[in-house]
Amino acid sequence: MNKIELCVSPALYSFYENRDAVVVVVDVLRATSSICTAFANRVKTLIPVETQDEAKAKKAEGYIVAAERNGIVLDFADFGNSPDNFSEDLIGGKEVVYSTTNGTKTIKLAAESHKVAIGAFINLTALTDWITKQNRDVLILCAGWKNKVNMEDTVFGGALAERLLEAGTHNTICDSVCFAIDTWKRHKNDLLSYINQAAQKERLRKNGLDGCIEYCCSLDQTPVVPVYENGKLVDAIG
Amino acid sequence: MNKIELCVSPALYSFYENRDAVVVVVDVLRATSSICTAFANRVKTLIPVETQDEAKAKKAEGYIVAAERNGIVLDFADFGNSPDNFSEDLIGGKEVVYSTTNGTKTIKLAAESHKVAIGAFINLTALTDWITKQNRDVLILCAGWKNKVNMEDTVFGGALAERLLEAGTHNTICDSVCFAIDTWKRHKNDLLSYINQAAQKERLRKNGLDGCIEYCCSLDQTPVVPVYENGKLVDAIG
Repeated sequence: MNKIELCVSPALYSFYENRDAVVVVVDVLRATSSICTAFANRVKTLIPVETQDEAKAKKAEGYIVAAERNGIVLDFADFGNSPDNFSEDLIGGKEVVYSTTNGTKTIKLAAESHKVAIGAFINLTALTDWITKQNRDVLILCAGWKNKVNMEDTVFGGALAERLLEAGTHNTICDSVCFAIDTWKRHKNDLLSYINQAAQKERLRKNGLDGCIEYCCSLDQTPVVPVYENGKLVDAIG
Repeated sequence: MNKIELCVSPALYSFYENRDAVVVVVDVLRATSSICTAFANRVKTLIPVETQDEAKAKKAEGYIVAAERNGIVLDFADFGNSPDNFSEDLIGGKEVVYSTTNGTKTIKLAAESHKVAIGAFINLTALTDWITKQNRDVLILCAGWKNKVNMEDTVFGGALAERLLEAGTHNTICDSVCFAIDTWKRHKNDLLSYINQAAQKERLRKNGLDGCIEYCCSLDQTPVVPVYENGKLVDAIG
Protein backbone atom coordinates (compact mmCIF):
# COMPACT_ATOMS: atom_id res chain seq x y z
CA MET A 1 0.00 0.00 0.00
CA ASN A 2 1.11 3.56 -0.65
CA LYS A 3 2.13 5.66 2.31
CA ILE A 4 1.46 9.21 3.51
CA GLU A 5 3.96 11.46 5.23
CA LEU A 6 3.56 15.03 6.42
CA CYS A 7 6.42 17.53 6.40
CA VAL A 8 5.45 20.50 8.57
CA SER A 9 8.10 22.95 7.30
CA PRO A 10 10.00 23.43 4.02
CA ALA A 11 13.21 23.38 6.10
CA LEU A 12 12.53 19.70 6.94
CA TYR A 13 11.93 18.69 3.31
CA SER A 14 15.27 16.92 2.82
CA PHE A 15 14.45 14.52 5.68
CA TYR A 16 11.11 13.54 4.11
CA GLU A 17 12.04 13.78 0.42
CA ASN A 18 10.54 10.98 -1.70
CA ARG A 19 11.01 11.54 -5.42
CA ASP A 20 8.55 8.79 -6.31
CA ALA A 21 5.76 10.52 -4.40
CA VAL A 22 3.07 13.00 -5.31
CA VAL A 23 3.97 16.05 -3.22
CA VAL A 24 1.00 18.16 -2.13
CA VAL A 25 2.09 21.73 -1.37
CA VAL A 26 -0.08 23.49 1.21
CA ASP A 27 -0.20 27.19 2.07
CA VAL A 28 -3.81 27.63 3.17
CA LEU A 29 -3.40 31.33 4.11
CA ARG A 30 -3.17 32.26 1.31
CA ALA A 31 -1.07 31.00 -1.62
CA THR A 32 -2.60 27.61 -2.35
CA SER A 33 -6.15 28.88 -1.74
CA SER A 34 -5.45 31.70 -4.20
CA ILE A 35 -3.95 29.32 -6.78
CA CYS A 36 -7.06 27.13 -6.65
CA THR A 37 -9.25 30.23 -6.97
CA ALA A 38 -7.27 31.37 -10.01
CA PHE A 39 -7.95 28.05 -11.76
CA ALA A 40 -11.59 28.13 -10.67
CA ASN A 41 -11.68 31.50 -12.47
CA ARG A 42 -10.09 29.98 -15.59
CA VAL A 43 -6.55 31.28 -15.49
CA LYS A 44 -4.63 29.50 -18.28
CA THR A 45 -1.41 28.97 -16.31
CA LEU A 46 0.32 30.37 -13.24
CA ILE A 47 4.08 30.76 -13.37
CA PRO A 48 5.55 30.66 -9.85
CA VAL A 49 8.78 32.63 -9.47
CA GLU A 50 10.83 32.74 -6.33
CA THR A 51 12.51 36.14 -6.26
CA GLN A 52 11.22 39.68 -6.57
CA ASP A 53 13.74 40.29 -9.39
CA GLU A 54 12.31 37.41 -11.44
CA ALA A 55 8.78 38.71 -10.88
CA LYS A 56 9.82 42.23 -11.91
CA ALA A 57 11.53 40.93 -15.06
CA LYS A 58 8.37 39.05 -16.04
CA LYS A 59 6.34 42.23 -15.53
CA ALA A 60 8.69 44.02 -17.95
CA GLU A 61 8.04 41.20 -20.44
CA GLY A 62 4.34 42.05 -20.31
CA TYR A 63 2.97 39.39 -17.96
CA ILE A 64 0.29 40.07 -15.37
CA VAL A 65 2.12 39.70 -12.05
CA ALA A 66 0.66 38.76 -8.67
CA ALA A 67 3.35 39.25 -6.01
CA GLU A 68 3.57 39.99 -2.30
CA ARG A 69 5.98 39.76 0.60
CA ASN A 70 4.76 39.58 4.19
CA GLY A 71 1.24 40.31 2.99
CA ILE A 72 2.16 43.55 1.19
CA VAL A 73 1.68 43.82 -2.60
CA LEU A 74 5.03 44.55 -4.30
CA ASP A 75 5.02 48.00 -5.89
CA PHE A 76 5.54 46.78 -9.47
CA ALA A 77 2.90 44.01 -9.24
CA ASP A 78 -0.65 44.14 -10.62
CA PHE A 79 -2.05 42.71 -7.42
CA GLY A 80 -1.18 40.55 -4.40
CA ASN A 81 -2.09 37.20 -2.98
CA SER A 82 -5.71 37.48 -1.83
CA PRO A 83 -8.04 34.92 -3.44
CA ASP A 84 -10.38 37.75 -4.49
CA ASN A 85 -7.57 39.34 -6.52
CA PHE A 86 -7.85 36.44 -8.97
CA SER A 87 -11.18 37.38 -10.56
CA GLU A 88 -12.12 35.93 -13.93
CA ASP A 89 -12.22 39.33 -15.66
CA LEU A 90 -8.59 39.97 -14.66
CA ILE A 91 -7.03 36.55 -15.22
CA GLY A 92 -9.41 34.36 -17.27
CA GLY A 93 -7.54 32.73 -20.16
CA LYS A 94 -4.25 34.40 -19.26
CA GLU A 95 -0.77 33.38 -18.10
CA VAL A 96 -0.09 35.01 -14.74
CA VAL A 97 3.24 35.23 -12.90
CA TYR A 98 3.03 34.58 -9.19
CA SER A 99 5.40 35.15 -6.25
CA THR A 100 4.63 34.93 -2.51
CA THR A 101 6.47 34.86 0.82
CA ASN A 102 6.32 31.11 1.47
CA GLY A 103 4.24 29.34 -1.16
CA THR A 104 6.19 29.70 -4.40
CA LYS A 105 9.50 28.72 -2.77
CA THR A 106 7.86 25.56 -1.44
CA ILE A 107 6.44 24.59 -4.84
CA LYS A 108 9.91 24.84 -6.42
CA LEU A 109 11.50 22.89 -3.57
CA ALA A 110 9.43 19.83 -4.50
CA ALA A 111 9.84 20.18 -8.27
CA GLU A 112 12.03 17.06 -8.64
CA SER A 113 9.38 14.73 -7.24
CA HIS A 114 7.02 12.60 -9.37
CA LYS A 115 4.27 15.24 -9.36
CA VAL A 116 3.56 18.42 -7.40
CA ALA A 117 -0.08 19.23 -6.68
CA ILE A 118 -1.64 22.19 -4.89
CA GLY A 119 -3.81 21.55 -1.82
CA ALA A 120 -6.26 23.77 0.02
CA PHE A 121 -9.49 23.24 1.92
CA ILE A 122 -11.32 24.72 -1.07
CA ASN A 123 -10.25 21.82 -3.35
CA LEU A 124 -10.01 19.00 -0.78
CA THR A 125 -12.41 16.51 -2.35
CA ALA A 126 -11.18 17.06 -5.92
CA LEU A 127 -7.59 16.68 -4.73
CA THR A 128 -8.39 13.49 -2.80
CA ASP A 129 -10.13 11.95 -5.81
CA TRP A 130 -7.22 12.84 -8.08
CA ILE A 131 -4.61 11.44 -5.65
CA THR A 132 -6.43 8.13 -5.25
CA LYS A 133 -6.03 7.61 -9.02
CA GLN A 134 -2.26 8.23 -9.00
CA ASN A 135 -1.28 5.04 -7.12
CA ARG A 136 1.68 6.78 -5.47
CA ASP A 137 3.02 7.66 -2.04
CA VAL A 138 1.93 11.10 -0.89
CA LEU A 139 4.09 13.68 0.86
CA ILE A 140 2.11 16.63 2.21
CA LEU A 141 4.49 19.59 2.31
CA CYS A 142 3.45 22.59 4.42
CA ALA A 143 4.73 26.01 3.40
CA GLY A 144 4.56 27.26 7.01
CA TRP A 145 5.73 30.78 7.84
CA LYS A 146 9.40 31.50 7.12
CA ASN A 147 10.23 27.89 7.95
CA LYS A 148 8.28 27.92 11.21
CA VAL A 149 5.38 25.51 11.60
CA ASN A 150 1.85 26.88 11.29
CA MET A 151 -1.54 25.58 12.39
CA GLU A 152 -3.50 26.07 9.20
CA ASP A 153 -1.23 24.04 6.93
CA THR A 154 -0.71 21.31 9.53
CA VAL A 155 -4.44 20.84 10.15
CA PHE A 156 -5.02 20.70 6.39
CA GLY A 157 -2.47 17.88 6.33
CA GLY A 158 -4.69 16.07 8.83
CA ALA A 159 -7.79 16.61 6.69
CA LEU A 160 -6.18 15.24 3.53
CA ALA A 161 -4.54 12.33 5.35
CA GLU A 162 -7.86 11.35 6.95
CA ARG A 163 -9.51 11.28 3.52
CA LEU A 164 -6.73 9.11 2.03
CA LEU A 165 -6.76 6.68 4.94
CA GLU A 166 -10.54 6.42 4.65
CA ALA A 167 -10.22 5.81 0.89
CA GLY A 168 -8.10 2.76 1.74
CA THR A 169 -5.43 3.66 -0.83
CA HIS A 170 -2.83 4.81 1.71
CA ASN A 171 -1.55 4.04 5.18
CA THR A 172 0.95 5.82 7.41
CA ILE A 173 3.57 5.38 10.09
CA CYS A 174 4.37 9.11 10.18
CA ASP A 175 4.04 10.75 13.59
CA SER A 176 3.23 14.14 12.05
CA VAL A 177 0.29 12.59 10.20
CA CYS A 178 -0.96 11.13 13.49
CA PHE A 179 -1.07 14.43 15.35
CA ALA A 180 -2.35 16.36 12.33
CA ILE A 181 -5.28 13.94 11.92
CA ASP A 182 -5.90 14.21 15.62
CA THR A 183 -6.05 18.03 15.38
CA TRP A 184 -8.30 17.85 12.32
CA LYS A 185 -10.73 15.45 14.00
CA ARG A 186 -10.90 17.73 17.02
CA HIS A 187 -11.57 20.90 15.01
CA LYS A 188 -13.21 19.87 11.73
CA ASN A 189 -16.58 21.10 12.97
CA ASP A 190 -15.22 24.48 14.11
CA LEU A 191 -12.39 24.93 11.63
CA LEU A 192 -12.82 28.69 11.30
CA SER A 193 -12.61 29.25 15.07
CA TYR A 194 -9.53 27.08 15.18
CA ILE A 195 -7.74 28.86 12.31
CA ASN A 196 -8.68 32.20 13.84
CA GLN A 197 -6.19 31.36 16.62
CA ALA A 198 -3.34 31.11 14.11
CA ALA A 199 -0.47 33.60 14.12
CA GLN A 200 -1.16 34.18 10.40
CA LYS A 201 -4.66 35.49 11.20
CA GLU A 202 -3.03 38.26 13.23
CA ARG A 203 -0.48 39.01 10.49
CA LEU A 204 -3.28 39.30 7.93
CA ARG A 205 -5.51 41.35 10.25
CA LYS A 206 -2.77 43.97 10.70
CA ASN A 207 -2.83 44.54 6.94
CA GLY A 208 -6.63 44.34 6.66
CA LEU A 209 -6.30 41.07 4.75
CA ASP A 210 -8.04 38.62 7.09
CA GLY A 211 -11.38 38.86 5.28
CA CYS A 212 -10.45 35.83 3.17
CA ILE A 213 -9.98 33.41 6.08
CA GLU A 214 -13.58 32.16 6.13
CA TYR A 215 -13.40 31.42 2.40
CA CYS A 216 -10.00 29.69 2.76
CA CYS A 217 -11.50 27.46 5.48
CA SER A 218 -14.51 26.47 3.35
CA LEU A 219 -14.37 22.96 1.96
CA ASP A 220 -14.83 22.13 -1.70
CA GLN A 221 -15.46 25.48 -3.35
CA THR A 222 -13.88 24.28 -6.60
CA PRO A 223 -13.09 20.98 -8.39
CA VAL A 224 -9.66 22.12 -9.69
CA VAL A 225 -6.36 20.31 -9.00
CA PRO A 226 -3.47 22.58 -9.95
CA VAL A 227 -0.25 20.68 -10.70
CA TYR A 228 3.25 22.01 -11.38
CA GLU A 229 4.66 20.89 -14.73
CA ASN A 230 7.56 22.29 -16.74
CA GLY A 231 7.81 25.42 -14.64
CA LYS A 232 4.10 26.26 -14.74
CA LEU A 233 0.96 25.45 -12.79
CA VAL A 234 -1.90 24.00 -14.84
CA ASP A 235 -5.19 22.38 -13.88
CA ALA A 236 -4.91 18.56 -13.97
CA ILE A 237 -8.70 18.32 -14.19
CA GLY A 238 -9.64 21.09 -16.63
CA MET B 1 5.15 38.60 30.06
CA ASN B 2 7.59 35.90 29.02
CA LYS B 3 6.72 33.80 25.99
CA ILE B 4 6.79 30.12 25.09
CA GLU B 5 7.73 28.71 21.71
CA LEU B 6 7.96 25.08 20.60
CA CYS B 7 10.49 23.88 18.04
CA VAL B 8 9.44 20.42 16.83
CA SER B 9 12.76 19.41 15.23
CA PRO B 10 16.44 20.27 15.83
CA ALA B 11 16.63 21.14 12.11
CA LEU B 12 14.27 24.09 12.73
CA TYR B 13 16.26 25.44 15.68
CA SER B 14 17.81 28.39 13.84
CA PHE B 15 14.32 29.74 13.05
CA TYR B 16 13.28 29.68 16.71
CA GLU B 17 16.64 30.47 18.35
CA ASN B 18 16.35 32.84 21.33
CA ARG B 19 19.61 33.17 23.25
CA ASP B 20 17.87 34.92 26.16
CA ALA B 21 15.56 31.96 26.70
CA VAL B 22 15.67 28.86 28.84
CA VAL B 23 15.76 26.04 26.28
CA VAL B 24 14.10 22.81 27.43
CA VAL B 25 15.47 19.84 25.49
CA VAL B 26 12.99 16.95 25.14
CA ASP B 27 13.68 13.39 24.02
CA VAL B 28 11.02 11.47 25.92
CA LEU B 29 11.93 8.08 24.36
CA ARG B 30 14.48 7.83 25.81
CA ALA B 31 17.36 10.27 26.36
CA THR B 32 15.80 12.91 28.57
CA SER B 33 13.85 10.31 30.59
CA SER B 34 17.14 8.45 31.14
CA ILE B 35 19.00 11.63 32.10
CA CYS B 36 16.37 12.45 34.73
CA THR B 37 16.56 8.87 36.00
CA ALA B 38 20.35 9.11 36.27
CA PHE B 39 20.05 12.20 38.51
CA ALA B 40 17.25 10.56 40.51
CA ASN B 41 19.80 7.78 41.10
CA ARG B 42 22.42 10.30 42.20
CA VAL B 43 24.79 10.44 39.25
CA LYS B 44 27.27 13.28 39.95
CA THR B 45 27.39 14.62 36.40
CA LEU B 46 26.58 13.43 32.88
CA ILE B 47 28.91 14.50 30.09
CA PRO B 48 27.04 14.52 26.74
CA VAL B 49 29.29 13.83 23.74
CA GLU B 50 28.11 13.95 20.17
CA THR B 51 30.26 11.47 18.27
CA GLN B 52 31.11 7.82 18.79
CA ASP B 53 34.82 8.71 18.61
CA GLU B 54 34.50 11.17 21.50
CA ALA B 55 32.62 8.57 23.54
CA LYS B 56 35.26 5.93 22.80
CA ALA B 57 38.08 8.33 23.77
CA LYS B 58 36.34 9.02 27.10
CA LYS B 59 36.05 5.28 27.72
CA ALA B 60 39.80 4.98 27.18
CA GLU B 61 40.28 7.73 29.79
CA GLY B 62 38.44 5.56 32.32
CA TYR B 63 34.94 7.05 32.31
CA ILE B 64 31.78 4.97 32.53
CA VAL B 65 30.18 5.40 29.08
CA ALA B 66 26.48 5.10 28.18
CA ALA B 67 26.17 5.18 24.38
CA GLU B 68 23.80 3.94 21.70
CA ARG B 69 22.88 4.55 18.09
CA ASN B 70 19.47 3.58 16.72
CA GLY B 71 18.69 1.83 19.99
CA ILE B 72 21.76 -0.45 19.88
CA VAL B 73 24.42 -0.22 22.61
CA LEU B 74 27.79 0.68 21.07
CA ASP B 75 30.26 -2.17 21.48
CA PHE B 76 32.77 -0.24 23.62
CA ALA B 77 30.12 1.25 25.94
CA ASP B 78 29.24 0.07 29.43
CA PHE B 79 25.53 0.28 28.70
CA GLY B 80 22.97 2.03 26.49
CA ASN B 81 20.13 4.49 26.87
CA SER B 82 17.38 2.67 28.78
CA PRO B 83 16.34 4.43 31.97
CA ASP B 84 16.88 1.18 33.90
CA ASN B 85 20.55 1.14 32.83
CA PHE B 86 21.16 4.09 35.12
CA SER B 87 20.85 2.28 38.45
CA GLU B 88 22.29 3.85 41.58
CA ASP B 89 24.79 1.04 42.16
CA LEU B 90 26.31 1.62 38.70
CA ILE B 91 26.31 5.42 38.52
CA GLY B 92 25.68 6.89 42.01
CA GLY B 93 28.28 9.61 42.75
CA LYS B 94 30.05 9.14 39.41
CA GLU B 95 30.72 11.16 36.27
CA VAL B 96 29.20 9.33 33.30
CA VAL B 97 29.76 10.03 29.60
CA TYR B 98 26.63 9.88 27.49
CA SER B 99 25.94 9.73 23.74
CA THR B 100 22.66 8.95 21.95
CA THR B 101 21.15 9.12 18.45
CA ASN B 102 19.19 12.36 18.83
CA GLY B 103 19.33 13.66 22.38
CA THR B 104 22.97 14.65 22.92
CA LYS B 105 23.21 16.49 19.59
CA THR B 106 20.13 18.51 20.55
CA ILE B 107 21.53 19.48 23.96
CA LYS B 108 24.71 20.83 22.34
CA LEU B 109 22.73 22.70 19.67
CA ALA B 110 21.14 24.88 22.36
CA ALA B 111 24.32 25.38 24.41
CA GLU B 112 24.64 29.11 23.58
CA SER B 113 21.26 30.00 25.06
CA HIS B 114 20.75 31.42 28.57
CA LYS B 115 20.19 28.00 30.15
CA VAL B 116 19.53 24.48 28.86
CA ALA B 117 17.30 22.26 30.96
CA ILE B 118 16.21 18.65 30.46
CA GLY B 119 12.49 17.88 30.22
CA ALA B 120 10.58 14.61 30.47
CA PHE B 121 7.20 13.55 31.76
CA ILE B 122 8.96 12.05 34.78
CA ASN B 123 10.17 15.50 35.97
CA LEU B 124 7.33 17.68 34.63
CA THR B 125 6.26 19.34 37.88
CA ALA B 126 9.79 19.95 39.14
CA LEU B 127 10.75 21.42 35.78
CA THR B 128 7.68 23.67 35.70
CA ASP B 129 8.39 24.96 39.22
CA TRP B 130 12.02 25.67 38.35
CA ILE B 131 11.12 27.47 35.10
CA THR B 132 8.58 29.73 36.78
CA LYS B 133 11.42 31.03 39.00
CA GLN B 134 13.72 31.89 36.06
CA ASN B 135 11.65 34.81 34.69
CA ARG B 136 12.70 34.02 31.12
CA ASP B 137 11.21 33.12 27.76
CA VAL B 138 11.05 29.36 27.21
CA LEU B 139 11.89 27.52 24.02
CA ILE B 140 10.89 23.84 24.10
CA LEU B 141 13.24 22.01 21.72
CA CYS B 142 12.21 18.53 20.62
CA ALA B 143 14.96 16.07 19.70
CA GLY B 144 12.66 14.24 17.28
CA TRP B 145 13.98 11.30 15.24
CA LYS B 146 16.80 12.15 12.84
CA ASN B 147 15.30 15.60 12.33
CA LYS B 148 11.80 14.27 11.69
CA VAL B 149 9.01 15.31 14.04
CA ASN B 150 7.80 12.80 16.62
CA MET B 151 4.64 12.51 18.69
CA GLU B 152 6.11 11.90 22.10
CA ASP B 153 8.30 15.01 22.23
CA THR B 154 5.63 17.24 20.67
CA VAL B 155 2.93 16.15 23.14
CA PHE B 156 5.36 16.73 26.01
CA GLY B 157 5.76 20.27 24.65
CA GLY B 158 2.01 20.63 25.03
CA ALA B 159 2.09 19.36 28.62
CA LEU B 160 4.82 21.77 29.69
CA ALA B 161 3.29 24.72 27.82
CA GLU B 162 -0.10 24.08 29.44
CA ARG B 163 1.51 24.14 32.89
CA LEU B 164 3.34 27.42 32.18
CA LEU B 165 0.24 29.11 30.75
CA GLU B 166 -1.71 27.97 33.81
CA ALA B 167 1.03 29.33 36.08
CA GLY B 168 0.44 32.75 34.51
CA THR B 169 4.16 33.38 34.01
CA HIS B 170 4.12 32.87 30.23
CA ASN B 171 1.95 33.40 27.19
CA THR B 172 2.34 32.31 23.57
CA ILE B 173 1.63 33.22 19.97
CA CYS B 174 3.39 30.12 18.66
CA ASP B 175 1.27 27.88 16.41
CA SER B 176 3.25 24.77 17.39
CA VAL B 177 2.43 25.42 21.05
CA CYS B 178 -1.26 25.69 20.13
CA PHE B 179 -1.48 22.32 18.44
CA ALA B 180 0.78 20.62 20.98
CA ILE B 181 -1.43 21.80 23.87
CA ASP B 182 -4.42 20.64 21.89
CA THR B 183 -2.90 17.18 21.48
CA TRP B 184 -1.93 17.03 25.15
CA LYS B 185 -5.43 18.01 26.31
CA ARG B 186 -6.93 15.33 24.10
CA HIS B 187 -4.61 12.57 25.33
CA LYS B 188 -3.44 13.46 28.84
CA ASN B 189 -5.77 10.88 30.34
CA ASP B 190 -4.61 8.11 27.98
CA LEU B 191 -1.03 9.20 27.38
CA LEU B 192 0.38 5.67 27.25
CA SER B 193 -2.10 4.57 24.56
CA TYR B 194 -1.29 7.68 22.58
CA ILE B 195 2.50 7.23 22.78
CA ASN B 196 2.10 3.56 21.91
CA GLN B 197 1.07 4.74 18.41
CA ALA B 198 4.43 6.51 17.94
CA ALA B 199 6.93 5.32 15.35
CA GLN B 200 9.54 5.18 18.12
CA LYS B 201 7.50 2.56 20.01
CA GLU B 202 7.92 0.28 16.99
CA ARG B 203 11.65 1.03 16.70
CA LEU B 204 12.13 0.18 20.38
CA ARG B 205 9.92 -2.93 20.18
CA LYS B 206 12.08 -4.38 17.40
CA ASN B 207 15.07 -4.25 19.74
CA GLY B 208 13.10 -5.43 22.79
CA LEU B 209 13.51 -1.99 24.36
CA ASP B 210 9.88 -0.82 24.61
CA GLY B 211 9.46 -1.97 28.21
CA CYS B 212 10.43 1.52 29.40
CA ILE B 213 7.60 3.37 27.63
CA GLU B 214 5.12 3.15 30.50
CA TYR B 215 7.72 4.56 32.89
CA CYS B 216 8.68 7.34 30.43
CA CYS B 217 4.99 8.33 30.22
CA SER B 218 4.55 8.47 34.01
CA LEU B 219 4.36 11.97 35.42
CA ASP B 220 6.54 13.21 38.25
CA GLN B 221 8.67 10.24 39.17
CA THR B 222 11.51 12.49 40.29
CA PRO B 223 12.07 16.11 41.44
CA VAL B 224 15.34 16.58 39.51
CA VAL B 225 15.97 19.34 36.96
CA PRO B 226 19.11 18.51 34.99
CA VAL B 227 20.75 21.59 33.42
CA TYR B 228 23.68 21.80 30.99
CA GLU B 229 26.53 23.97 32.29
CA ASN B 230 30.15 24.12 31.15
CA GLY B 231 29.89 20.98 29.06
CA LYS B 232 28.24 18.87 31.76
CA LEU B 233 24.76 18.07 33.00
CA VAL B 234 24.18 18.70 36.70
CA ASP B 235 21.03 18.78 38.83
CA ALA B 236 19.82 22.37 39.36
CA ILE B 237 17.81 21.19 42.38
CA GLY B 238 20.19 18.79 44.15
